[in-house]
Parts: sequence; C-alpha cells; structure tokens
Amino acid sequence: MTTQQLIEQIKIKKSFLCVGLDVDLNKIPQSFLTLEDPIFEFNKAIIDATHDLAVAYKPNTAFFEAYGIKGWMSLQKTINYINENYPNIFTIADAKRGDIGNTSSMYAKAFFEDLNFDSITVAPYMGKDSVEPFLAFENKHTIMLALTSNEGAFDFQTLDVDGTELYKRVLETSKTWKNSANLMYVVGATKAEYFTEIRKIVPDSFLLVPGVGAQGGSLSEVCKYGMNANVGLLINSSRGIIYASKEADFAEKARAEALKIQQEMAAILESK
Amino acid sequence: MTTQQLIEQIKIKKSFLCVGLDVDLNKIPQSFLTLEDPIFEFNKAIIDATHDLAVAYKPNTAFFEAYGIKGWMSLQKTINYINENYPNIFTIADAKRGDIGNTSSMYAKAFFEDLNFDSITVAPYMGKDSVEPFLAFENKHTIMLALTSNEGAFDFQTLDVDGTELYKRVLETSKTWKNSANLMYVVGATKAEYFTEIRKIVPDSFLLVPGVGAQGGSLSEVCKYGMNANVGLLINSSRGIIYASKEADFAEKARAEALKIQQEMAAILESK
Repeated sequence: MTTQQLIEQIKIKKSFLCVGLDVDLNKIPQSFLTLEDPIFEFNKAIIDATHDLAVAYKPNTAFFEAYGIKGWMSLQKTINYINENYPNIFTIADAKRGDIGNTSSMYAKAFFEDLNFDSITVAPYMGKDSVEPFLAFENKHTIMLALTSNEGAFDFQTLDVDGTELYKRVLETSKTWKNSANLMYVVGATKAEYFTEIRKIVPDSFLLVPGVGAQGGSLSEVCKYGMNANVGLLINSSRGIIYASKEADFAEKARAEALKIQQEMAAILESK
Repeated sequence: MTTQQLIEQIKIKKSFLCVGLDVDLNKIPQSFLTLEDPIFEFNKAIIDATHDLAVAYKPNTAFFEAYGIKGWMSLQKTINYINENYPNIFTIADAKRGDIGNTSSMYAKAFFEDLNFDSITVAPYMGKDSVEPFLAFENKHTIMLALTSNEGAFDFQTLDVDGTELYKRVLETSKTWKNSANLMYVVGATKAEYFTEIRKIVPDSFLLVPGVGAQGGSLSEVCKYGMNANVGLLINSSRGIIYASKEADFAEKARAEALKIQQEMAAILESK
C-alpha cells in the first residue's frame, strides 16, 4: 500500500485507528480454546467487527512466536485473512527487528514478501545498514522506534547526545538514509508535548502512536501536537479494544470501543 | 545451562568457539535442495562435524523466518537436535528481540520455554522493562547488544552521552537491572582496543564476539584485551565455517576451519 492510499483510507473512514492484535489466550473468551486455531479465530472475529472503523491492524509477532509453529500458522492465516478480505487495510508486523545487513534483508523478505505485510517495526540501535535493507522495498514501510511509550524509554532514548536527545538524533540521522521516504516512526503518546519537537524534525512522516487509552495518553493532546496536513498519525489501541470483554459479546464490545475512538477521531478531523 | 557449566565446557574442549547457523539456501551444496528440510539437514551435518570443537551454536532466527512456517520447523528441529544429541552445547537464539514488558515476556517464553534455547540476543533501545522479563528465567542467559560489529554501530552506539559513549552507558545501566547476573553482551571484534574499556565496566560477564575472521577482527587481539579469568568470551564464526565449501566436502571443510580456530584458541588458553 502506498502512503497516498493510506491517507485516502483515513479520509474515507474518518479514522486513523490501528488495532493491535496481541492475543493472550488467557484473556480471550475461553470457548475459543476448543477451536483448532483459537488465535486466528479470535483475530478474525475482531477484524470482522472493526474493519470499517480502523485503517490498520498490527499483529505483534511475539504473541504468535510464543506458540511456536502453531503460532506462526496463526500469524500467516491472520495476515492472509486481512489481505484477502480487506485489501484497503494497512498491515503492520510489530516485530521490532534489526540486525546486520544480510540478516535484515532476510527479515525484510520474511515480512514483506513471504507474509506480505505493508510494514514492519524495527529497532535503530544497530544503525544505517541494519535498517536500509528494509527501506529498499517499494511501497513497503519501515516503522522505526524513536520514542517508545514504556518506562524504559527514559533509560537511553532521552539521554543527551551533543545537546540533543538520542531519539531526536535517531530521527535526524535516519532522514539521511537511502529511501528514507519509506520510514515511519514509533512515538509513544505518554508525553504529548514531545510531538512538537518531533514534528520539527519529521514534519511529513507518519507516526505510529502506542500508549493512548489504557496506558494514559490522550488522543486529543497527541493530535494537537502531532497531526500534520495529511493527518500523519496512526493511533494504536490493543488491549482497550480486543479485551473489552471476555464474554460472548467480546466482538460487539470491541466494536463499541473502536467506534468510540473512531468518533473522537472523526470529530478531530472535522474540526481541522 | 549454567555459566559454570559453560566455563567447564570451554576448559574441556579448549575452545570458546560459537558456530553461527545462518543458512542461505543459495550458499549450501545444491544437492540439499532436493531434501524435505534442506536447512535442518545442512545444520545437522555442520553440527555433527564440529560439535567437539565448538561450545556453542547460534542459529540466526532471520534465516529461518525468511522461509515462513517451514523455516520455523527447521529452527525447532535444529535446536531439538542439538539439545537431544549434544546436551553440553550452549545454544543461542540470535533473535535481537526487545519490546515492552508483556511482549518481551512472550518472546522469552517462545525462546526459553517453547524452543528451549539457553540464551537469546536482545536489543537495548527500549530500556530496562524491555530486557528484565528475559532476565527472570533461571539458568537462561540474555545477551544484550552493546557494541556491534557492523558499520552502523557508529551511528548511535558510540555517540557521546554525558561524557561517555552510549554503549558504555548501556553496559553500566544494565548492571543495575534485576537479575543482571543473567546478562551477557554482544561486542564486535572489529576494534579490539574497545575491550579494555568494556572490561572495566563488565569484568566478569561473558561477551559474544562476532566479526572475527571474515569481518576482519583478530582472535589474538580480542583475547589480549577481552579475556578474563573464566575466559569470558564466545567467539562467533558463521560464514567462515559453514560456507567453507559449497561442494560435497562442505562438512569436512567446515570441520577443518573450526579446527583451525579451536587450535588457535587452545594455544591462547595454554599460554594464559
């Protein structure tokens, strides 16, 4: 999917919601556990219930890998289901990969070609040659960690390097890489004021924003400081939506939660 | 495997060699391609030919993931084969994972429990709560990126933060984390002098060292500056060993390459 197509979908759906698919078998309706592939069936139900309210889905690879080969089959079925039934959805493999060049190429092949995701999250620590192999794929997007939403973000990401914070240096440096137009960034919602500074460095890039809702971030604050002319934001919610209920009404309740966020987003888009 | 058991194996084998299993189907004898599981069969042949010369094997997960579910089956068969046939081998999942707490827990479960690796490589960018879930596993080891061997290492890892380099700050900070005794570190061999500084910060930790041989690092230099009383080094070689030949004699040639390194290691250990 091209960035332009993503922007169009945001306008059509009046939504920039991304639903995170982090399936923990302990937290889903226990009736699913008797099915052959509970993870896929749960994802399918969530996707069917929310696809018109969300522009993106983000399966978190850890939650699939934890179940070994069965988990990878669930991941493959989930991405195939989205691509076949909802081709206008932007898909994100939340994998946080990154390694030396030839290894990153293998990861890119795995997620962009074999699984056919539109995008993947990557970690910046190993620098340019660990990220550029991902950037080489046309109409695929590489979402690099900049400032994450967890407590540990302040261990290294906000350290002062030559008068600027490390995450800003990461943003600045990444702009010089080959095919950097294919970059997006992960920026946590926990401190909305950071978005002002970030937008000075990457005014046009899409930002994937975790941490709204359950983790304490405010949607309106993030939009106030982070939105650009093309919206430029994908707001992720995982647990708040997919675990809205553990009962038979889980899909209905997930839809209700997604609708609440989508309506808030529609109002924000209208007011701009 | 405990650290003490690893140290014993190093003494018994007079070796601190780790063989990296990064199988690229284009680089192995093409006769393997007709087999049902070429990656596993190739790994098995390499392991059988080198197990008495190496103390560790390091499958690189990217090279398995690139082949989807089949690749994960090869990974599972490879780790099972090592655990069943060579239980004294230290196994490393070279996965470079790291995410928010509950997600890191899922990765730890995947690699330590489901696949039963002794250790996993992780990335530090997301800080304490992204690494501690791995450290909670008893007799499992978490090998965190400090200073990598690729060119991009100098993009961020060596930046000056408050008068010290970022990778040193990463080392220092990680020592304060819970169960930090379960940490080891990735330190590239490309600049052996760095080891002097690193040993001031983590005198007792094991260091996993890529970049010797093909990538230009010198074994004797790394040992001179990096070795401690318990050796404290695992020197990785991947391509130099597993791709020593593409012909029918590949296993024999791999053994010859491993033997060359092991003999050099034995001489170094003897001279200490």
